[in-house]
Amino acid sequence: MNITQIRNATLIIEYAGVKILIDPMLADKDAFPGLPGTVNSHIRMPTVDLPISIKEILDVDAILLTHLHPDHWDETACQAISNDTLIWLQNEKDQATLQQQGFTNTHIFKDGTYFKDITLTSTQCQHGYDMLFDNPAMAERLGEVTGVILSHPEEKTVYLVGDSIWTPQIETTMKTIQPEVVILNAGWAHVLEFGPIIMGKEDVLKTHMLLPNAKIVATHMEAVNHVLLSRAELKDYAEVNQIDSFVSIPEDGENVAF
Amino acid sequence: MNITQIRNATLIIEYAGVKILIDPMLADKDAFPGLPGTVNSHIRMPTVDLPISIKEILDVDAILLTHLHPDHWDETACQAISNDTLIWLQNEKDQATLQQQGFTNTHIFKDGTYFKDITLTSTQCQHGYDMLFDNPAMAERLGEVTGVILSHPEEKTVYLVGDSIWTPQIETTMKTIQPEVVILNAGWAHVLEFGPIIMGKEDVLKTHMLLPNAKIVATHMEAVNHVLLSRAELKDYAEVNQIDSFVSIPEDGENVAF
Repeated sequence: MNITQIRNATLIIEYAGVKILIDPMLADKDAFPGLPGTVNSHIRMPTVDLPISIKEILDVDAILLTHLHPDHWDETACQAISNDTLIWLQNEKDQATLQQQGFTNTHIFKDGTYFKDITLTSTQCQHGYDMLFDNPAMAERLGEVTGVILSHPEEKTVYLVGDSIWTPQIETTMKTIQPEVVILNAGWAHVLEFGPIIMGKEDVLKTHMLLPNAKIVATHMEAVNHVLLSRAELKDYAEVNQIDSFVSIPEDGENVAF
Repeated sequence: MNITQIRNATLIIEYAGVKILIDPMLADKDAFPGLPGTVNSHIRMPTVDLPISIKEILDVDAILLTHLHPDHWDETACQAISNDTLIWLQNEKDQATLQQQGFTNTHIFKDGTYFKDITLTSTQCQHGYDMLFDNPAMAERLGEVTGVILSHPEEKTVYLVGDSIWTPQIETTMKTIQPEVVILNAGWAHVLEFGPIIMGKEDVLKTHMLLPNAKIVATHMEAVNHVLLSRAELKDYAEVNQIDSFVSIPEDGENVAF
């Protein structure tokens, strides 16, 4: 398999002969203001340009959206993608939104959904601390998010953890599934007053401690205003903790093969 | 009250008219090799000198030891402190060690122990992840550690959390006691293969989120080989998360009053 880091959480996974585009945010650099109420909201986003053209990015067999926050699915993507593109979604709510946006080939993936010979399994995420979800407005804003496991008889199992803090459910999923490749959204994005809403460097280490042989790919860094972990800082942390041989931190446009 | 940062976890707390020295490590800079099996063990420790003389540091009414790891109680302290000094300890095991070292005025503090009019309450710590304590050799090495709550009718309640990762018990203690001042050992020390063994910057934020009016004093930074969080990095993090008015990060020799 081949995982290409595009920018932020946008990835292309080539897996069992199929190319899947994950979470396209395709706007130009500085297209929108920073996300209000998050850390560093004075910084416009995306903070960097795409590394390849939108046309090249969209040369895929399907798109999978873990959720519809604007750093995972933006207006530029919505405009650029043809209405009949096969799009996998987490739930009926997101499907209704995409249908309203004119997309006619949307499907929900759940435990054991098949895309060709690939099994797509939806996994639990929690996009912020419990105290955030105790606040109804914030719970609505952060909302439901999914992770996904890709498995295939001839490929290593990949667990794309999604926009989530570390939770006991994720720990259980890792222990049960024993994925050989784990993709972590590790930019440690923060909402003011509610703290981290995705993983950070400590979670990269925790993943290694639970799955000592797994390869970890760190993504969702350095492209949006509210992420606090840089690639350089994660690289340092992996080195000093002697886990750097297990952790890939691809630059935008770079790919890793397993 | 007045809290003076000496170095690492060594503090002097002046509280209700009494001066208590916490966790004295008094060796010269570079006196010992880095702690084996921890991150950056090639660096000798302490990495900095004491900011004031040992004589000034020892001008106190009592000493309190949260545990006996060498960065909290070292040979220099053991030699420099008179045998009849009043020393508060967490348990019989530590008391037996101190008695063997010749100390004759040792006492164990538990729920509701009084030192003059100050109530000393021992609190739970966990000096590493569960997986570390599942390993018998590591469990023995990290061992039992305590935190302490100081309370007095005329003083704000202080919770010195001790050498611990974030745990549900600590969360419960914070919610129940509602301390006005929280001292966090926040240097994010790491043991190789087992990860963090004390708190880090995220735990400073978590403390603020649980106790939005409390003043937080961050200590146990920048003096021993295995701590990964610097004062500058914590300062930045507090600023970007807009909690800097609640967080003090005293330099060695600096004091904060509440």
